[in-house]
Order: sequence, then structure tokens, then C-alpha cells
Amino acid sequence: MTDPVTVAVDVNGADHGPAEVARGAARAAAGGVRVLLFGPAAEIGPVAEGVSVIDAPVSIAKDPDPARAVRRTPEASIVRAVAAVAAGEADALVSGGSTGAALASSLFTFKRARGVHRPALALMIPVPGHPFLLLDAGANVEVRPEHLVQFAHMGAAFMEAVGGVASPRVALLSNGTEATKGTENVVIAHASLVDAPGLNFVGNVEGFAIGTGAADVIVADGFTGNVALKVMEGSSAALLGAVRSAAMSSWRSKLGGMLLRPALRGLRNELSPEEQGGAVLLGLRKLAVVPHGSFGALGFQRAIEVAARGVREDVAGRTHARLQAAGALRRASDPAASVPDES
Amino acid sequence: MTDPVTVAVDVNGADHGPAEVARGAARAAAGGVRVLLFGPAAEIGPVAEGVSVIDAPVSIAKDPDPARAVRRTPEASIVRAVAAVAAGEADALVSGGSTGAALASSLFTFKRARGVHRPALALMIPVPGHPFLLLDAGANVEVRPEHLVQFAHMGAAFMEAVGGVASPRVALLSNGTEATKGTENVVIAHASLVDAPGLNFVGNVEGFAIGTGAADVIVADGFTGNVALKVMEGSSAALLGAVRSAAMSSWRSKLGGMLLRPALRGLRNELSPEEQGGAVLLGLRKLAVVPHGSFGALGFQRAIEVAARGVREDVAGRTHARLQAAGALRRASDPAASVPDES
Repeated sequence: MTDPVTVAVDVNGADHGPAEVARGAARAAAGGVRVLLFGPAAEIGPVAEGVSVIDAPVSIAKDPDPARAVRRTPEASIVRAVAAVAAGEADALVSGGSTGAALASSLFTFKRARGVHRPALALMIPVPGHPFLLLDAGANVEVRPEHLVQFAHMGAAFMEAVGGVASPRVALLSNGTEATKGTENVVIAHASLVDAPGLNFVGNVEGFAIGTGAADVIVADGFTGNVALKVMEGSSAALLGAVRSAAMSSWRSKLGGMLLRPALRGLRNELSPEEQGGAVLLGLRKLAVVPHGSFGALGFQRAIEVAARGVREDVAGRTHARLQAAGALRRASDPAASVPDES
Repeated sequence: MTDPVTVAVDVNGADHGPAEVARGAARAAAGGVRVLLFGPAAEIGPVAEGVSVIDAPVSIAKDPDPARAVRRTPEASIVRAVAAVAAGEADALVSGGSTGAALASSLFTFKRARGVHRPALALMIPVPGHPFLLLDAGANVEVRPEHLVQFAHMGAAFMEAVGGVASPRVALLSNGTEATKGTENVVIAHASLVDAPGLNFVGNVEGFAIGTGAADVIVADGFTGNVALKVMEGSSAALLGAVRSAAMSSWRSKLGGMLLRPALRGLRNELSPEEQGGAVLLGLRKLAVVPHGSFGALGFQRAIEVAARGVREDVAGRTHARLQAAGALRRASDPAASVPDES
């Protein structure tokens, strides 16, 4: 590797403001990544070495119709950041503004990677002791079996390249572990994944697998994946809230809660979604990382690092190699795709 | 109400043995329910007033193919208990053995309720402060929009009759709250639920709603519902395990955990699935309650009470009235149904 990787970052829309994103960029730049910040230069302020600012004050981060806003606002910071990546001025995208705008502009402008039917949104889930990659977390509400098959290979390539897991165990999310359990899509995908060359397919997992370390990559359609992701977040929040209330119910338990706090703080840090850098859009010719708008400098630093690592470790090339080895490359055109074809 | 309600209970397969089920039955009988226990009389032992034993020692609770076992084993306790309900000797079924055998025998023998397309498995989820009913939790992996519409009415009728919630808020589980979000099935079901007379439809909820009290009844297809249910259980278990580990990480946090324990025990009891009695199969002409095999006397007592309350409060009649008022009764035959039609 000779040239450093360059990551284009849209800073508009981040809850903690452009300067906080710039702090994350500075930390990533200290690690050897070049960063281009797109946003209001006046609010970004002075930046560290390795970080450049492109003044792009127009924001569509709060637009209720991101797809329309992307089409109508070529001067928006997210659109300009995406254009810079598409033009080769940067290698990958990070956007902390509106997820909708980031997805819409990536989908419109980046082409599908060679042989990929549909891009998918992947998210590292920080389960204590055994994090895993969940995809699709919401990009494709309705899928066909061959899409699930490709998600399996795309997830394996990412987990290997960026997660550093050799021969990642890949599973289909279903309502039972047997090969016959699931929707017709899942059953068909299962049958073709069982013998997929080069893939460590471990079969179906149930929702319980969230938290048991049964797989490194869990594959679902975007509807089920999105529901599962949010159920996870919702039930964890409800449980933590109930534990907190219980800890406030008496002097005895208040004291107990106080003594436990440092240990729980460690746990909270381990489970922090900022450490993972956000969601990753896989299957396009360029990688896009979408940190949550609420992230601080750490989350943006990690997002930039994930994007850079994905480029350096060649997620795209590995994905293609895996799809090719498994005979799972898209051959005919995919009429249902919402993303422009590369050809 | 003159006659007491009679509940047929299959005791074979319960993890804690027939005598433990009989203890739960005794407590329910003390509350005025008549109970018929089907199982090995020798192991059940002497029973309380209001409880009768029908000696049915043959168990198919461990059979790997429950549907086949049900068809081939008329002398099995679950098959005899179901037959007693179908024959009018009892009003509802409780089975703590194999869920598969309980479902298969109920589906084979009870007919669909008037006007119902498909039965659904419903489960009360004991979220702290705001429990809700989730259906379908796994009976129907693939559904049509009219099935989701009926589940909404069936769930509302149950929540009103058994949960005691007036005008329960009903929601569709989706990947976004907007009416346009979700699979085609969800979008179509949403459109027809918006104006459904007599139904308090509150729109789509996301997975976050698990734990925010956004709805009293959450409707999904059986695949998504099953995944959501198990993700909830899996992520709660992972989180509690991590909190427990954190509480063992130092002397300070061990002491904190000890002081907190009584308050957390209260929470554990509130969240205990035994209090809910188990899953309920709705939409058949007879009600079937399926407690978890691991339940003790309390769980079986509650299961019997839920079944009795469902009969007394006329879940079936209320379901029919709601479907009729909403114009959602099945009219043509439902070719895809796996359950014998009543006609």
C-alpha cells in the first residue's frame, strides 16, 4: 500500500455539530487516513493535518423526503461528498447526517458492484463477548432467495476483511434451526448456501442466537433484519430502564447500584454502538458508512476507520471473489433492483 | 354464568412432572375452574376437589415429528385431551408438553372459528409497566394481508376479554411508522385497518415499541413475530448475563450486586413468563393455551385461568362480532389454510 486511503465525510446533520465530527476526523487522520470534510467551513473551524475542508454549507439532513432532496439539491454536502467518491477524489463515504439522505445519494450515484443484485445495509451488533454482523438491516424490504445468498457472501467478505474474522460463520435468521424452517425465500436460500464453496454456512439460527455467539454473520431480508435490530435495541432499553428503576426502589438498592456503577460503565462502553462506527452499505462499487447522527468524535473516528479499512482490505474485491467462487454472481439483469446497474 | 368452566389439561411432557401440573390445577380449581387432567394417573397422584384424572399414560411429548405422532397415536394424552374438548366434555385445552404436538392436535381437531382464515399464536409479553400481546408468534410463516387484518381483530378481542383492556391499541409491526413502510402485505393490511370500524388501530410500530408501551396488541406474520419474540428473549438474556458478569468483576461490584438482589428479584418475578400462562392459539372454535414445558405450578395455574377466562369472557364470540362489524369475516374458502374448515 503506497497511497493513503481518502474518506469523504459529510458533517452536516450530526447532532453534536461539525466541530465534533472534525475532532473524530483528526483522530482518524492521526492514524494515517486522509479525510475530506464536506460541510460549513465556518462551523468546522481549523482542522488537523491530513484533514481538508470543502465548504458545502447546504444541508438536506432534516429533509422529510431525502430521495427527492438528493435529486433536487446537487449543492448539498452529502451529494457533493458522494460525488467526490464517485469521481475518485475519495475512496469511500462517511455520513453522519440523515441516514435516508446518505442511503439515497449512495444508491443513486454509486453503481452496484460487479455481479451484485442488491446492496445491503450491514451493522455490527456489539453483543458482549461475541459481536456479529447483521445484514440486511433495512435496505431491501422484499427480497428473492438469490439476494439472501449474496448477502451471505457480502457479509462474510466484510466480516473477514474489516472484522478480521477468518472463515466467518454465516447463518440465516429464521423461525427454527431446521433447513425446512422459514419463509419460502429462506428455505430456498438455505438449500443453495449449504453447499456454497468457500462459505462457512452454519445453517439457520433463531432470534435467541442474538447473544449466544452462534454466528459471526446473520443474514435476513431487510424487513426482518430491521425489526430484529430495533427489537434488540427496544428490549435492551426496556430492561436497562427496569433495572435502573429497581435500583432506585430503596436505600439498600440505591447503594447497591452506586457500588455497581463502575463495572456497568465498562459494560456500557463495550456495548456502545460508537465503537462499531455505524451501519455499512455493502454491494455498491464504493463503500458507504453511516454512523448514527447522535455519535460523538469517537463514533466518527471509528466510522472513518471502518471505511478506510474496508478500502485497504478490499471488501469489494473479496466480495466479488467469493461470489464468483460460489457461482453466485448476478448474470441476467435484476429487474426489481432500485439501484442503477453498473453496465 | 351457572356452570363452571372445564379445562382439559395434558400433563405429559411438563419438565417438572405430572404432580407439579396437578398442583397448578389444584390452585386453579380453588378459584372455581373444573380441571380434567390427562396423563399417567399413577404419577399424578391424589388430586384436589374440582380436579379429575383421566388415565392416559401414553406420551408423544418427545416425538420429533409431532404432526405424524398426533395422527398415529389416538391414545396419546394430548390427543385425548383435545378430543375431550372437541366432544364438549371440556371447554378449552391446556398443554404443557410439546408445543408442536399441542399445536398439531389442536389444528387437526378443532375447527376454525366462524369466519376466520387462519388461527394465530398469541403471546403476552411481560414488558415492565406495559405488557402487550404479540401475534402471530409462529403459527403462519407466510400470510396474506387479510390474515394480518384478522389477527388484528383476534388480538383485540383477546386483549379485551382476557387482558381486561378496554379498546386495546392495535399496531402492525414494521420497519417504519409511516403507512407506506413495510412489506407489501403490511402496507395493504395497514390501509384496510386504518378505517376498520370498532378497532383502535394506532398504525405501524417499529421494533423499538417493544418496551415503550406504544400498543396493547402488536400484529406480525408468524415468521417476523417468531423472530421478534426470540430476539427479545435472546437479547434480554445476553444483557442480563453481561450485567451478572459485571457484578462479579470486583469485590465492590459483588457487594453492589448483593445489595441490589432483592429489588432485581421483584423485577424478575414481574417479568416471569409463568405469570402470563403461555401462548394462546386463537381463531379455532376452541381455545388452546400452551404453557412452556419448563413452567411450574404457577405457570400451569395461570394457563388454566387464562383458558377459563377466555371461555367465560367469550373470546370466540367477541372475535366474531369484531370481524363482522369490520366486514373482515372470511367469505370465500381459504385454499391455503392448513386447518380444516368448519363447513
